[in-house]
Amino acid sequence: MLTLDKVYHAGFVLKDVIRKTDLIHAPKINSESDIYLKTENLQITGSFKVRGAYYKISQLSDEEKAKGVIACSAGNHAQGVALAAAKNGIKSLICLPDGAPISKVEATKGYGAEVCLVEGVYDDAYNKAIQLRDEKGYTFIHPFDDENVIAGQGTIGLELLEQLPDADAVIVPVGGGGLISGVAFAINQLRPEIKVYGVQANGAPSMVESLNNGKIECLDNVATIADGIKVKEPGEHTFEFCKKYVDEIVTVSDDEISSAILALIEQHKLISEGAGAVSVAAAMFNKVPVKGKKVICLVSGGNIDVTILSKVIKRGLLKSGRSDSINIELMDKPGQLRDVSKIIADLGGNVIAIHHERSDEKTDINGCYLRILLETRNYEHIFAIRQALTDAGFKIVE
Amino acid sequence: MLTLDKVYHAGFVLKDVIRKTDLIHAPKINSESDIYLKTENLQITGSFKVRGAYYKISQLSDEEKAKGVIACSAGNHAQGVALAAAKNGIKSLICLPDGAPISKVEATKGYGAEVCLVEGVYDDAYNKAIQLRDEKGYTFIHPFDDENVIAGQGTIGLELLEQLPDADAVIVPVGGGGLISGVAFAINQLRPEIKVYGVQANGAPSMVESLNNGKIECLDNVATIADGIKVKEPGEHTFEFCKKYVDEIVTVSDDEISSAILALIEQHKLISEGAGAVSVAAAMFNKVPVKGKKVICLVSGGNIDVTILSKVIKRGLLKSGRSDSINIELMDKPGQLRDVSKIIADLGGNVIAIHHERSDEKTDINGCYLRILLETRNYEHIFAIRQALTDAGFKIVE
Repeated sequence: MLTLDKVYHAGFVLKDVIRKTDLIHAPKINSESDIYLKTENLQITGSFKVRGAYYKISQLSDEEKAKGVIACSAGNHAQGVALAAAKNGIKSLICLPDGAPISKVEATKGYGAEVCLVEGVYDDAYNKAIQLRDEKGYTFIHPFDDENVIAGQGTIGLELLEQLPDADAVIVPVGGGGLISGVAFAINQLRPEIKVYGVQANGAPSMVESLNNGKIECLDNVATIADGIKVKEPGEHTFEFCKKYVDEIVTVSDDEISSAILALIEQHKLISEGAGAVSVAAAMFNKVPVKGKKVICLVSGGNIDVTILSKVIKRGLLKSGRSDSINIELMDKPGQLRDVSKIIADLGGNVIAIHHERSDEKTDINGCYLRILLETRNYEHIFAIRQALTDAGFKIVE
Repeated sequence: MLTLDKVYHAGFVLKDVIRKTDLIHAPKINSESDIYLKTENLQITGSFKVRGAYYKISQLSDEEKAKGVIACSAGNHAQGVALAAAKNGIKSLICLPDGAPISKVEATKGYGAEVCLVEGVYDDAYNKAIQLRDEKGYTFIHPFDDENVIAGQGTIGLELLEQLPDADAVIVPVGGGGLISGVAFAINQLRPEIKVYGVQANGAPSMVESLNNGKIECLDNVATIADGIKVKEPGEHTFEFCKKYVDEIVTVSDDEISSAILALIEQHKLISEGAGAVSVAAAMFNKVPVKGKKVICLVSGGNIDVTILSKVIKRGLLKSGRSDSINIELMDKPGQLRDVSKIIADLGGNVIAIHHERSDEKTDINGCYLRILLETRNYEHIFAIRQALTDAGFKIVE
């Protein structure tokens, strides 16, 4: 049975190990509410996961510690377990699917874990970890469905109550549900009037569907850029906690997540991973009732692959009307490029790239395509530029 | 005459206006020293500049305040002045060259300033600002060469001494020199044994050359991705402060700056602009004696254009051996792509993009080019993959 005492105890154990991450005022995220960011992306290992992993490992018996721990994860949990084990002076083995990004594998090794690459996908790595646990006597550290892990994550709830005692609501990313279980439990015990909302990616709504159907559902397919919360099935404990302590769980799309990641970069100079940004996306796009409220968005982690980051930035710019890609069919005669350039420049559009293609089986023999990538102010700006081009007789094709 | 009292006074005035930004431990930046980051990129407006601008404006007479202020900047100073003026309830006018990025213009307007776009470059905008000052009686807010501005920036020095009293050294970005003047002055008055190092971009070493030649030098050309410190000429006050209180000023290259920006993103989930990352670059690449020392890198700002950010990420990955682009000349026959793919996969390289070009005037009529973009672990990894391809008979071309 999780108790508030246990969460306090976790806070005591973690005090000198983790960072008490800053709460940053973010008034521009949603102009009708007063938003704050709990920056667990600035936590050591780049994610909150180290809290639960460390507390869990610290509470093992000496015998269990002597044998070491095992976990299965390609992400934040792996790094949390690796660091927590190293700091407790014990051995850790992390099973990863062999397709895991090099950067994650290296980071996990860098925190001192031994890495076991398993052919296949997550489930294969998980089965291997369970097999090794049974064979070697390692303790398996579950990423979310464990009361000590949940108690560790709950320490964030205690910090929030200290950092912003008059908050009206907290928005929390939900994958397996460990984070929100701990946060909602702690807040409910101490300040039950504060709302706790959860957010899942709409491509992986396992907790939402489980709550809707009143029983744990396992999704066949999950797909989202927020890989940290791409979870097929909630835990038994976490399902019960969510039923009891969480006010509502909503979903956001990948495009909304991209916009939130971009807003955090541009407005707050913070790197968030997809999973970390879903709380901000929910506030930005009014998925939960935040109007007129003082709301904390928990930014749970920042471990995003930089190549994915580049793509997300591009997508976020398009989604928010900050860039546009226009294809124009031109007659292949002198002066056309000049005319197009002039129209765009006169309206204050900033050309980032131009691709000029003369031969294409789809174009008239005397025609050519001009593809222009533009930096723009917003959707009205894009519309004005496209309209001016059309008015001048240019044919825009998609 | 700047006094320590004035810096303390600035601290008092700024207390409820600015954020006391977090100091974050960054042990991986340089494995032989103990590095901390002072995160002024997380300051309101995304840069330290608001400190000096606010303190300067707060100290104007009522008559001066009634007339309003003017400044010339395409960057952080503009946003600092705009916000500081708005918070003091006075009017601000910012002159910008008309080629300034849309994002900067919008941000400046967003903080409440009136923007005057001036045809030409920075110098034209500056001349226009001076002309308007003379005509309209606005107070001109200098970006660095002003004792009240310097006192405002000096408040960072006070915070550092409180946050890490046993620091051995502080590394500070240098453009016009306002930031380092304030920080070095405050630290020198209170803890003269702490070293203060400055860093400029090697494409804009105006303070370095001025100190070397013992007089203020004006550079003809400056070029660097760190546009926040792309300054042709130091100020009179700041030159004197640097002579007196700064231990050494070094330079870093654009590639080193890109690597530092990438390290801040990947290791610390922080967005830094080029100017903000030069201090980290100096520590990473041992430009100043940091070995065995406890060192603070001042990350001065995070206002980087996202399109530039994308480019910097790419450059940083290449520079640190984390990606490689290989061009291979193939015979145009079946199975070649399979063979190349197998060699790369066996060595753990991760293919990000492939471009397969059959017709090129430089290739043999039966040949073709294969261009592969790879994610790699480090230079040794790149070398191993290239060697294996060569050993298998493939011809790598540059």
